[in-house]
Amino acid sequence: MSIKIGIAGYGNLGKGVELAIRQNDDMELAGIFTRRDPASVKALTEGAKVYRLDEAKDMADSIDVMIICGGSATDLPEQTPELAKYFNVIDSFDTHARIPEHFANVDAAAKESGKLALISLGWDPGLFSLNRLYAESILPNGKSYTFWGKGVSQGHSDAIRRVEGVKRGIQYTVPIESAIEAVRSGSQPELTTRQKHLRECWVVPEEGADTAKIEESIKTMKNYFDEYDTTVNFITEEEFDRVHNKMPHGGFVMRSGLTGDGENIHQMIEYSLKLESNPEFTASVLICYARALARLRAEGRTGCLTAFDVAPAYLSRLSGEELRATML
Amino acid sequence: MSIKIGIAGYGNLGKGVELAIRQNDDMELAGIFTRRDPASVKALTEGAKVYRLDEAKDMADSIDVMIICGGSATDLPEQTPELAKYFNVIDSFDTHARIPEHFANVDAAAKESGKLALISLGWDPGLFSLNRLYAESILPNGKSYTFWGKGVSQGHSDAIRRVEGVKRGIQYTVPIESAIEAVRSGSQPELTTRQKHLRECWVVPEEGADTAKIEESIKTMKNYFDEYDTTVNFITEEEFDRVHNKMPHGGFVMRSGLTGDGENIHQMIEYSLKLESNPEFTASVLICYARALARLRAEGRTGCLTAFDVAPAYLSRLSGEELRATML
Repeated sequence: MSIKIGIAGYGNLGKGVELAIRQNDDMELAGIFTRRDPASVKALTEGAKVYRLDEAKDMADSIDVMIICGGSATDLPEQTPELAKYFNVIDSFDTHARIPEHFANVDAAAKESGKLALISLGWDPGLFSLNRLYAESILPNGKSYTFWGKGVSQGHSDAIRRVEGVKRGIQYTVPIESAIEAVRSGSQPELTTRQKHLRECWVVPEEGADTAKIEESIKTMKNYFDEYDTTVNFITEEEFDRVHNKMPHGGFVMRSGLTGDGENIHQMIEYSLKLESNPEFTASVLICYARALARLRAEGRTGCLTAFDVAPAYLSRLSGEELRATML
Repeated sequence: MSIKIGIAGYGNLGKGVELAIRQNDDMELAGIFTRRDPASVKALTEGAKVYRLDEAKDMADSIDVMIICGGSATDLPEQTPELAKYFNVIDSFDTHARIPEHFANVDAAAKESGKLALISLGWDPGLFSLNRLYAESILPNGKSYTFWGKGVSQGHSDAIRRVEGVKRGIQYTVPIESAIEAVRSGSQPELTTRQKHLRECWVVPEEGADTAKIEESIKTMKNYFDEYDTTVNFITEEEFDRVHNKMPHGGFVMRSGLTGDGENIHQMIEYSLKLESNPEFTASVLICYARALARLRAEGRTGCLTAFDVAPAYLSRLSGEELRATML
């Protein structure tokens, strides 16, 4: 019997979930829920049903897991606790500082309804968090590093686009290779913000705009660019559309640790992602945790969990026996 | 209250466990168990108690977790089920093909005694297995690769030392960089044995030995070297002792996957280890799973588990609340 998935919110991430369902034939798409007029939404899947988000609760019995694909700033803090009243839910809430508060809200709602929730999934938070936990538990004497990119930062791209004279803009966060190499060497360097990442901007200026002024405004922008080495490149709209139409991302989680009698033996753990599509990869993580969620709920679990609480075997379609025989 | 650890078998791995206990102050060394005469064993830890292995069962009440540090060929298949009659046990059984059989034996013993066992821990099997599972569950359309090294292969070093005229010998398995790069490119290459790893040998010949013949014997050795590109380097005993006295190892687990509407968007997951001491790192993994084992046993679990069955949170000293606040 396949796991019936609902998608709440149909932007890039929601579409990614829809596509990821196709790669997992123990899953089926039960419905897409949107705040827009359902008639205006064209799903990628032939025959997919699109509903108004506020009708969702009437379908509580026909959906096993609702994957909530809204934004972390304002959507998820409201939607996840609300939908947890009716559904087992998954989200990708990624405002690190507000996770404890979000967890408490979702946990309370899910405990009251007898549903199960999994929050803050994806790759960071998510897979990167898992790797921090594994590596720090294994090597207690050590230092952890996270590098992001090369990838598009939505927040920084938005900031560029607010600069006067900018018609189109995109920003890539680029990890600095020499910093990564310094970490790999085992020297456990202290790295400043500027030493870890570059910010690379691609801008299509409005006709007649003062590009020197645009560049200056971007490079000195507080909280976004002033603490980084930033490059600003001006290009045509044609080139922008041709080259900068993807949402790549990725990064590195590294743990440099010491073991041994003199604690001078260097041990290095490194995890990295190189993603051509950030939303599609995040969606693949969410769908694989939907399997885990359905299984854990079937065992009677309720309340809120994170990736830390899910034994890896729950993610796989293979049985324990098959996993031990083929993957251990 | 700290977790009382017993160490069964006091070779390189057992010593590594002893050192790893020092880095985890929720652990204490309760005893070392050896098949040798305990009086002949000098522990690294001041005041450590050394017992005969066959006395272990009399100490069932004073040890929370027994970490069994024997070899996979003949020790562990006997010792782990036997000790599971009296103790919660952990081992690093690494004969991949025989894991299902070993699991069944240990599971039966532990279920009967009401103890909990965790087998096949370390980095491969262990952390590499976990990464294969996570990555394959997330990217079902893809191809997985494991590369080992650069590191010492005990089996191949032993094989070299059996060649006539060889006084000392060591073998490093070296992953081929161009093969790793081909995987990273997303081309999902089919790689032969020869294309993935080199075998690098360092030999001290007996006085007057025929080095050309030694080289030929090594390079053509069936099952060990004949399917690989192998280099044989002759060095002095002084250089051998100075340069080749460590047990480095490591490797890469990679998953190259495709997502998206046309399944043509490349997503790359890579996990790698670079270890200056293989036994000390393996020991660090075992000790961190000893914490998980003690907690899972306290929850009432019995029988045999693997790393696949352990939720990551059990490995950390931090509470769920602390983990969510600091590591998610």
